[in-house]
Amino acid sequence: MRIGVVGGGQLGRMLAEAGAGFDARFTFLDPSESACAGLHGRHLKADWSDAAALEALIADSDVVTFEFENVSPDVVATLAERRPAFPPAEALATARDRWAEKSLFRSLDIPLPAVAKIDSQADLDAAVAEIGLPAVLKTRTLGYDGKGQKVLRETADVAGAFAELGAVPLVLEGFVDFDHEVSLVAVRGRDGDTRAWPLTRNEHRQGILHRSTPQPGHALQPRAEDYAQRVLDALDYVGVMAFEFFVSGDELLANEIAPRVHNSGHWSIEGAATSQFENHLRAIAGLPLGSTERLAPCAMLNVVGAFPERDAVLTVPGTRWHDYGKAPRPGRKIGHITVLAPCEEQLQERLDAVEKLLVNDLG
Amino acid sequence: MRIGVVGGGQLGRMLAEAGAGFDARFTFLDPSESACAGLHGRHLKADWSDAAALEALIADSDVVTFEFENVSPDVVATLAERRPAFPPAEALATARDRWAEKSLFRSLDIPLPAVAKIDSQADLDAAVAEIGLPAVLKTRTLGYDGKGQKVLRETADVAGAFAELGAVPLVLEGFVDFDHEVSLVAVRGRDGDTRAWPLTRNEHRQGILHRSTPQPGHALQPRAEDYAQRVLDALDYVGVMAFEFFVSGDELLANEIAPRVHNSGHWSIEGAATSQFENHLRAIAGLPLGSTERLAPCAMLNVVGAFPERDAVLTVPGTRWHDYGKAPRPGRKIGHITVLAPCEEQLQERLDAVEKLLVNDLG
Repeated sequence: MRIGVVGGGQLGRMLAEAGAGFDARFTFLDPSESACAGLHGRHLKADWSDAAALEALIADSDVVTFEFENVSPDVVATLAERRPAFPPAEALATARDRWAEKSLFRSLDIPLPAVAKIDSQADLDAAVAEIGLPAVLKTRTLGYDGKGQKVLRETADVAGAFAELGAVPLVLEGFVDFDHEVSLVAVRGRDGDTRAWPLTRNEHRQGILHRSTPQPGHALQPRAEDYAQRVLDALDYVGVMAFEFFVSGDELLANEIAPRVHNSGHWSIEGAATSQFENHLRAIAGLPLGSTERLAPCAMLNVVGAFPERDAVLTVPGTRWHDYGKAPRPGRKIGHITVLAPCEEQLQERLDAVEKLLVNDLG
Repeated sequence: MRIGVVGGGQLGRMLAEAGAGFDARFTFLDPSESACAGLHGRHLKADWSDAAALEALIADSDVVTFEFENVSPDVVATLAERRPAFPPAEALATARDRWAEKSLFRSLDIPLPAVAKIDSQADLDAAVAEIGLPAVLKTRTLGYDGKGQKVLRETADVAGAFAELGAVPLVLEGFVDFDHEVSLVAVRGRDGDTRAWPLTRNEHRQGILHRSTPQPGHALQPRAEDYAQRVLDALDYVGVMAFEFFVSGDELLANEIAPRVHNSGHWSIEGAATSQFENHLRAIAGLPLGSTERLAPCAMLNVVGAFPERDAVLTVPGTRWHDYGKAPRPGRKIGHITVLAPCEEQLQERLDAVEKLLVNDLG
């Protein structure tokens, strides 16, 4: 099994770790000299659109995938002419464009916050009049981890906001007074078989994911799976997709999708019968999907900007250390820690102990 | 963390897989062109005693270990002069020599089957007179997986048996009419901290391990841990050691030790809060040891000589595939399959389903 991956960051790296049991060989296309996935395979150091590098990737691969969504759908479409390439380019195009994404939710009767397409300050003024404040203005493409967005709290924030975000295509999203955020990580095989891991509760700090805790038996699991299935089937999707939702009372509102393995699913490496990384590989390679059952109470804590003292963390029982081998920088995800426990009460104690040790630098 | 490993087989390979989260770098010394651990690090293709290769290994490593016991203890002692090298050479020397091993058990008051040192046919005749038949004649060194041994059932088997096994130093072991075999995999840190995984029940086919099933709460766990602690402390051991025992009624008789990660501990990769491979790394690198709790009912099945149909195995829920990337050959361990389940009953069903698919060629 030879897997070609566009992108060579930590998601690619963990994908390769999951492939070891299949004796899979990986080739990563990534322009960065220090792409951290390079440890686990061949690293083609070239731009995403470099024709010779894409040829080399094709020559090295039986199947091609990507590990981040800032690659152009055109590149995926080009690769798909030569090799099975999953997820499909159309899914990538939809996920990269907030308006296309929200429009898909609407067309599939999936509830979502109020949203408007903004291509001018006039569009923005009209949308604010309809949706009201507070609201969140976001670029249609290329935003992540809270970047490329602005919260509009009062009328004074609205004037000039279109220009402030670069006068690029935007969307305005109605503010949701949610109770908490959850994500559903799901996987769909080439044959349409679909599995989902338990809904995972996500807590953010300064717009960056801080903690993810799977919640098996969550009352909203069936509804989330139903929404996910609609999206996956509509896109004829193959591979792992993450769905972020707002939970407000018993309402579940779609926020966004990511056409790839997802930070909120990292707990599945140790905590599930099959991890998101392994099932992504199984899906794109056309193998049967694995069980998504949670094995034990667990949670994941992100390491951002700086590592806590390693020995102190490892002294807390049930901790697993994930150093991505990236240079630390404020606001940069450089690792994560999974915490496992035989019961929920002990999980809470262990999590509290690890939280106290974190020295994250969010920038 | 730079780890040098003498040996480059599947145990080294899985050690490297466990090191990924620590961003560890591996160098393997193995004369085989196709050493399967080479996928995960630098491969020095040279004989174990090649001076230049040992220099290169030292230059590449902060800590050195070995992944099989057929390396000479002298090599480990030499490495230990230049780098921390674990497990200690003395432990390796003891485990490689069945007579030294049994003598250690005796000196530590650990019960074991009747045993005699055999250096001639006369020794053998005398030992048979004392121990009785049936009994098992084994080479003192270099035997594994049932190789280098002969069962003596009746008087006719005794004559010439010394010559038949090569007229090398041997031991005669009294035959134990055991109920089943178990192993305890334990780990001891540089600071003496010791942890053990649950006792694991092992079933063999033609002398080759077939199935290993961890049994948390086994009545003999405390006694096995006591015996293991005696051995580990006596050898001032650092790293993972496996202890094989015969269970006969409520008796626990020591069979042998292996100074390394062990086939009967492979279930811990997915089934325990920390795997034997990760804890071996933590131990030799001087990090705090991780929890050895079992996360869920599970068992491991060896793949010997030939792989079963992969898709059929993966279709059974909770299965995890481990292909070591080795050329299949009758009697050769080329992979294993871990089976996980939410309860013991489902585990049994899933195991039965996978067992039916196995096409092992034991040679």
